[in-house]
Amino acid sequence: MRQSMHVLRTHPNRRGLSEITESVRGWVSKQGISQGMLTLFCRHTSASLLIQENAARAVRNDLEKFFDELAPEGANYEHDDEGPDDMPAHLKTALTQVQLNVPVMGGKLMLGTWQGIYLFEHRAHPSPREIVLHLVGE
Amino acid sequence: MRQSMHVLRTHPNRRGLSEITESVRGWVSKQGISQGMLTLFCRHTSASLLIQENAARAVRNDLEKFFDELAPEGANYEHDDEGPDDMPAHLKTALTQVQLNVPVMGGKLMLGTWQGIYLFEHRAHPSPREIVLHLVGE
Amino acid sequence: MRQSMHVLRTHPNRRGLSEITESVRGWVSKQGISQGMLTLFCRHTSASLLIQENAARAVRNDLEKFFDELAPEGANYEHDDEGPDDMPAHLKTALTQVQLNVPVMGGKLMLGTWQGIYLFEHRAHPSPREIVLHLVGE
Repeated sequence: MRQSMHVLRTHPNRRGLSEITESVRGWVSKQGISQGMLTLFCRHTSASLLIQENAARAVRNDLEKFFDELAPEGANYEHDDEGPDDMPAHLKTALTQVQLNVPVMGGKLMLGTWQGIYLFEHRAHPSPREIVLHLVGE
Repeated sequence: MRQSMHVLRTHPNRRGLSEITESVRGWVSKQGISQGMLTLFCRHTSASLLIQENAARAVRNDLEKFFDELAPEGANYEHDDEGPDDMPAHLKTALTQVQLNVPVMGGKLMLGTWQGIYLFEHRAHPSPREIVLHLVGE
Repeated sequence: MRQSMHVLRTHPNRRGLSEITESVRGWVSKQGISQGMLTLFCRHTSASLLIQENAARAVRNDLEKFFDELAPEGANYEHDDEGPDDMPAHLKTALTQVQLNVPVMGGKLMLGTWQGIYLFEHRAHPSPREIVLHLVGE
């Protein structure tokens, strides 16, 4: 058993879901670990991680719209120092999550046919984001 | 330290919460690992995993009703190719999660007294589902 | 590779978010593991774990208020044996989560600058809570 760790840096150009499956898969394929567990960890409180449908773009549009309506801008938030998208970003992060696990078998991510890994950016003007990748296995 | 992996196959006969604790516990007990970490991963985008109250059936009824109302059928979704339960299923999966961790100590799952592990099926006419189990420890 | 496990016991004195980062960091720093993965697991169905903003108190107020409104007391729940805060507590737990992963590098938690680890207590009169900490690495 051994482990490998990496910090994936990405700069989303818009709010919403950006697929990172290929970057993750590329790093995993170079670690020489055929069976194990991958963990992803997003080091932010206004962006999160989500495994979701990778085929229909409409699913992602509906997901973004749903979370925009569930945690709307302009509600009467106590915290609005950084603009109207600030507190909704924290709420959306809390409703999804900042870490994911994906098993690895035969050197491949055990994602289902329709599953992709997404960074879910919640700020209107995104900053660079860091996602820690950790793989343990053999 | 060593690891063990298995794909649990299950076919829910209805929408909602189906307990899988006993199937998971049975597999864990046969791996000869007394201390470690179990990870479960659901390979789907319209079914999720949840650890919740295993005593009162009413809790599960209220949970199912709550998510049905939070992500209702018949909202004005862009994506409805597979019927009115399709997009609500993706939303409920995003609001819960497709992976869980449960520590193992003394060969037993460290679940609390009232915790059970559930597959949360979100489609009206469920397909067979695959849940990857991964155990690392010694 | 080796692992270490501990049960952190805490008794929140109120409903809402209580930071546990320092307790977790203290335990991790004594395990002699410089690189690895920490997993936290909350053994309850009416309290959860959340990684969120550790600076502005207003963010936590807004988070608590948001979840109070999303899963309100007094809705027409089937399950109300243990009082009006019982079923909302289960719903809030389901909407957040009972487990977290945090990578460890150089002996330190890889939390982002603004990230703290919180126990999210959902009962009005909290009981003692148990959080399992598991660290694997080298």
